[in-house]
Amino acid sequence: MISFLNDYSEGAHPAVLRALEKHNLVPTVGYGEDEITREAKELLRRAMGKEDAEIHFLVGGTQTNSAAAAFLLRPWEGVISAETGHIAQHETGAVEAAGHKVLTLPSHAGKLRPGEVRAALLSHRENEIREHTVKPGMIYISNPTELGTVYDREELRALKEAAEEFRVPLYLDGARLGSALAAAGDRLTLRDIARYTDVFTVGGTKNGMLFGEALVFPDPEKAREFRYLEKQRGAMLAKGWLLGLQFKALFEDGLYFRLAEEAVGLARRLSDGLRKAGAELYVESPTNQVFVLLSEEEAACLREKYAFEFWEKPDGEKSVYRFVVSFARTGEEIDSLLRDAGDLIEKRNKRS
Amino acid sequence: MISFLNDYSEGAHPAVLRALEKHNLVPTVGYGEDEITREAKELLRRAMGKEDAEIHFLVGGTQTNSAAAAFLLRPWEGVISAETGHIAQHETGAVEAAGHKVLTLPSHAGKLRPGEVRAALLSHRENEIREHTVKPGMIYISNPTELGTVYDREELRALKEAAEEFRVPLYLDGARLGSALAAAGDRLTLRDIARYTDVFTVGGTKNGMLFGEALVFPDPEKAREFRYLEKQRGAMLAKGWLLGLQFKALFEDGLYFRLAEEAVGLARRLSDGLRKAGAELYVESPTNQVFVLLSEEEAACLREKYAFEFWEKPDGEKSVYRFVVSFARTGEEIDSLLRDAGDLIEKRNKRS
Amino acid sequence: MISFLNDYSEGAHPAVLRALEKHNLVPTVGYGEDEITREAKELLRRAMGKEDAEIHFLVGGTQTNSAAAAFLLRPWEGVISAETGHIAQHETGAVEAAGHKVLTLPSHAGKLRPGEVRAALLSHRENEIREHTVKPGMIYISNPTELGTVYDREELRALKEAAEEFRVPLYLDGARLGSALAAAGDRLTLRDIARYTDVFTVGGTKNGMLFGEALVFPDPEKAREFRYLEKQRGAMLAKGWLLGLQFKALFEDGLYFRLAEEAVGLARRLSDGLRKAGAELYVESPTNQVFVLLSEEEAACLREKYAFEFWEKPDGEKSVYRFVVSFARTGEEIDSLLRDAGDLIEKRNKRS
Amino acid sequence: MISFLNDYSEGAHPAVLRALEKHNLVPTVGYGEDEITREAKELLRRAMGKEDAEIHFLVGGTQTNSAAAAFLLRPWEGVISAETGHIAQHETGAVEAAGHKVLTLPSHAGKLRPGEVRAALLSHRENEIREHTVKPGMIYISNPTELGTVYDREELRALKEAAEEFRVPLYLDGARLGSALAAAGDRLTLRDIARYTDVFTVGGTKNGMLFGEALVFPDPEKAREFRYLEKQRGAMLAKGWLLGLQFKALFEDGLYFRLAEEAVGLARRLSDGLRKAGAELYVESPTNQVFVLLSEEEAACLREKYAFEFWEKPDGEKSVYRFVVSFARTGEEIDSLLRDAGDLIEKRNKRS
Repeated sequence: MISFLNDYSEGAHPAVLRALEKHNLVPTVGYGEDEITREAKELLRRAMGKEDAEIHFLVGGTQTNSAAAAFLLRPWEGVISAETGHIAQHETGAVEAAGHKVLTLPSHAGKLRPGEVRAALLSHRENEIREHTVKPGMIYISNPTELGTVYDREELRALKEAAEEFRVPLYLDGARLGSALAAAGDRLTLRDIARYTDVFTVGGTKNGMLFGEALVFPDPEKAREFRYLEKQRGAMLAKGWLLGLQFKALFEDGLYFRLAEEAVGLARRLSDGLRKAGAELYVESPTNQVFVLLSEEEAACLREKYAFEFWEKPDGEKSVYRFVVSFARTGEEIDSLLRDAGDLIEKRNKRS
Repeated sequence: MISFLNDYSEGAHPAVLRALEKHNLVPTVGYGEDEITREAKELLRRAMGKEDAEIHFLVGGTQTNSAAAAFLLRPWEGVISAETGHIAQHETGAVEAAGHKVLTLPSHAGKLRPGEVRAALLSHRENEIREHTVKPGMIYISNPTELGTVYDREELRALKEAAEEFRVPLYLDGARLGSALAAAGDRLTLRDIARYTDVFTVGGTKNGMLFGEALVFPDPEKAREFRYLEKQRGAMLAKGWLLGLQFKALFEDGLYFRLAEEAVGLARRLSDGLRKAGAELYVESPTNQVFVLLSEEEAACLREKYAFEFWEKPDGEKSVYRFVVSFARTGEEIDSLLRDAGDLIEKRNKRS
Repeated sequence: MISFLNDYSEGAHPAVLRALEKHNLVPTVGYGEDEITREAKELLRRAMGKEDAEIHFLVGGTQTNSAAAAFLLRPWEGVISAETGHIAQHETGAVEAAGHKVLTLPSHAGKLRPGEVRAALLSHRENEIREHTVKPGMIYISNPTELGTVYDREELRALKEAAEEFRVPLYLDGARLGSALAAAGDRLTLRDIARYTDVFTVGGTKNGMLFGEALVFPDPEKAREFRYLEKQRGAMLAKGWLLGLQFKALFEDGLYFRLAEEAVGLARRLSDGLRKAGAELYVESPTNQVFVLLSEEEAACLREKYAFEFWEKPDGEKSVYRFVVSFARTGEEIDSLLRDAGDLIEKRNKRS
Repeated sequence: MISFLNDYSEGAHPAVLRALEKHNLVPTVGYGEDEITREAKELLRRAMGKEDAEIHFLVGGTQTNSAAAAFLLRPWEGVISAETGHIAQHETGAVEAAGHKVLTLPSHAGKLRPGEVRAALLSHRENEIREHTVKPGMIYISNPTELGTVYDREELRALKEAAEEFRVPLYLDGARLGSALAAAGDRLTLRDIARYTDVFTVGGTKNGMLFGEALVFPDPEKAREFRYLEKQRGAMLAKGWLLGLQFKALFEDGLYFRLAEEAVGLARRLSDGLRKAGAELYVESPTNQVFVLLSEEEAACLREKYAFEFWEKPDGEKSVYRFVVSFARTGEEIDSLLRDAGDLIEKRNKRS
């Protein structure tokens, strides 16, 4: 069974395990105040070109997003998010559990439009009874989005301008950040992200780590006392060096970027191949997720050899299925899938 | 430098790393719904003699304690705890952040007295304006306590009786549960704990795992819908099998118990040796923590070779220092410390 | 200036003030445990035909709605509401501040459709990753709705069936309940409401009281320990008898119903008159709110003598304005408005 | 039956009711944005000598205290309070429900000692693992305290100095503020309070109003966006002018102060008389609460004519009973109680 289920199906890249193996029995101070963690943060700071960025390593994505919302918002403020946003859909109301409404705007293939964000902020400001409504206090985007699409530099800049005009922080959920950067190439760098957002995350779980998300505040002034909140929310790992060690392994020689580039390259090979074979893609995703329309029979047939996820059923006969390319997939596996899927699609197209 | 700083200074027992190494690249379904996790839970259930106990694996202790409080309590209920309880002191108000007051009672070497717990419950029930006060909705104990002391079967049974009489669940924080069981011997077994508590945890972080706490509901009826809360609080690990794998490694042949027994044995060797050398112990801790009174000079002297923690300064000249014996310590290391500490204490006693 | 701004512009009906005057200096026990409050509850129980209903008197609507949500929901549950629902729009995120997501469904002139509610509940139940999403734990409707429309007996029954099938309570926000009952006539009685909802409110503020909402649990078993929550949320009035006294004044001889009937009668006279004069109504509201489309000039002109609220600007030239008929309005005032508005509309229609 | 139960047993001073009667049917804009409310705030500002103080009128005390805590604190911060503080004892954990721990310090007849407050703040600052503990983020005092005692100017100044040094706001719960000012005379004025606290309340409920507490921020910068929170917490009254009107009635000619002075004068007559008769007072309360030690028989005997509250049972034979003098009590009533209690005490003293 070849897994395209998701990019968190496997454990860690071997380089990460080697580092762990090596350090395992060395006594190390707890709660992330160790030397390895310091080095890992230094590597990240260098990669984003912000020498004094404040960085915290947390375990998981929902934890990180809701801790950030709890940290950034006042009790009467909410978060603007696309209605497809992870915090709006798949975190069991973690943001609301922290007391804050998620204020949804339309999703454009997973993305927010800067104009619509500005309009929402303006509409609140001009509302005469605004105090009876939730104040937008933060903008949440994910990059790549939940549909695998990517914001580029210009879009980030436009969102940042709106955010600054209305004095609300722009937060970027980078659970798959490597993939966004690999897909965007010159059109978006880690430096851009550190420049055009107020807070962002660098996801490790979906790009070669056992677990781990870096929460980055490019301006350290905006991060004061975050560690209290981290501890309070159970997000401070006792053996915090486990997080530092993994980030160090991925960032000391660019492995983080290489893994993402390989996965994105394979995903592109997959989507190009599928398109060539006559398949219909549900959304143009340039990252490591491929959304294909298949009939139930075709999906069942492919499931004999491949694991992948049903995504949704739009109107029409076919359903959307998602194929995610993790760091552990190989070119051979992609080609095998392409052959099998190609055969099915060819047959289908002949019939019609 | 030999570390007695704590029992979470090192990584995992080698057996855990071997298991991880072996499984690392096998694609596995996420969020703890995998086969390894199922096996691990089965092993735990067998060890505690509760075939249908509901078990959830979480990452850390503060996370687990506050999730349990959020799950067990109604909004107007609080938790009874000794004033030395971890939730009362060292979780940055995580229980309060979930909306609940910690109702402290006196600590007797870290322990609650059943009579005092019953009196507090009765006093609330008989209070004519009780609706103006927080209702006690849960009893929290840690075993071993924060001072290394241990509740035995009879004490648990008495607490459970009070809990049942007033219909509040008894929760046992077992962050160092292995150590409590090793210290208690016949006077307390895992089966007793599953019998006399409503919810309890089996700590992995401090006994040979990289991280991981098992939250156990001996009666599965009382655990319904917990997974929602787990996800909402960011406590559901994407690669949940990492938790199952570690628990499996420790429970498939009793390693969890052996590691704790060894550490407790070494700690006893340490406390016996220190006492024999004429040292004064701050508290009678039968578990893997040893609390010794030392002068500042003695502590400074020992710090050249050993890492350990200042605990507190009671009245008098000496301070309390804590030596924790982790699974990674050896008999030689204990003997080395005993020699060095013994010399210092002997000198001191000669002078006086 | 004649006010159609809202139904909470004036103080209390004179009968309420007389009762207050009379009782004012009689010492009375606090926090709603007095005799008057007991009598008022008894009157309400009789009016709804539920001898053992549990009733609590709170001060305001947002307070009552959010207390009910906090009381009825588990931490991972949310409230289904029409997107126009008061809790979704105009309570500054009070439900979210209590930790719960408002799960919005389409508004049909302010109302939820039972079929859509059932579909949403079913969709959650069948979702394989439902634990990653908020569980619907309560259905919120307002009657009349925020657009002045009314649910009748059959609609309530259908909603209640869906609620029972999925075991979620049906909550009815009756901030203007008198108005709904007056409008529905035989098609809905207070007894129906007590029968087809799990919790509902009887609003006093907008129907002749200074302030006050009754929160009713037809089944007292479902109300246990509510007083703790009431106190905790600052919703328990020290001089609680002020609430009892007002409800008693309105319910001891049916004044509550008469006031609503008069206001609804006048509102109908207004809407009938406007329609006859050729005005366009934005929504068919049978209750005490009338929504009319007017040009800006017409509105400005009417504002010289009448106070009323801009509601919204749909596409097209005209805007929607809301005229609310309070218990303090008279037939003469309605006729005056009809004459002035009629003149304007006549002129307009001549021009076109 | 003459009531000494509390100072919220009766309704409002007749002057308040007259004002209500007069304004009752005048249409007025909602939510406290009316002219009367503006006038009332202006009167209060003048009385405290702070022209730009920001003032909000809320309904009750628990509501006001918990809204203030929610407004002033970050999620990881707690409130320092005497262990006898109202928020620590009798608000059903409202502060914890807002997510914050109440950090109790010893009560000295209900009061905090500035030196102990400073020590607690310092101890937190110097704690090496402070991020594992709740950060003190606000100091709560009540004046008068729950035991009727009073802070004077010097004590407030010393608390304010500690608060400023550690940058935490000093909050004063003035539920019975009039009484504290009347008791303190020259040693404390409303101006002092506005000068030496960051936020304080002026209680109306217990001094002649139906209900109502003014929440005062002497520095308006520190009050920004409070109205959002007020609405969210259900603390914004629809007919907000009811609050303004009552405060106006009490402050336009000093009635607030006169009522308190009379009550305090009568309470002093009571405590002096009791002392003279040989009674033992539990605490030296210079305000409108008198705490007397009585035997159960004596209490039962007095209860035939007087209503009052059992307070607590210290060691020894007698219990503490509380007599509260409200604005509605008269000199004759005090003298009657003095005669009856005096007789009982005389008899007792003869026997012994």
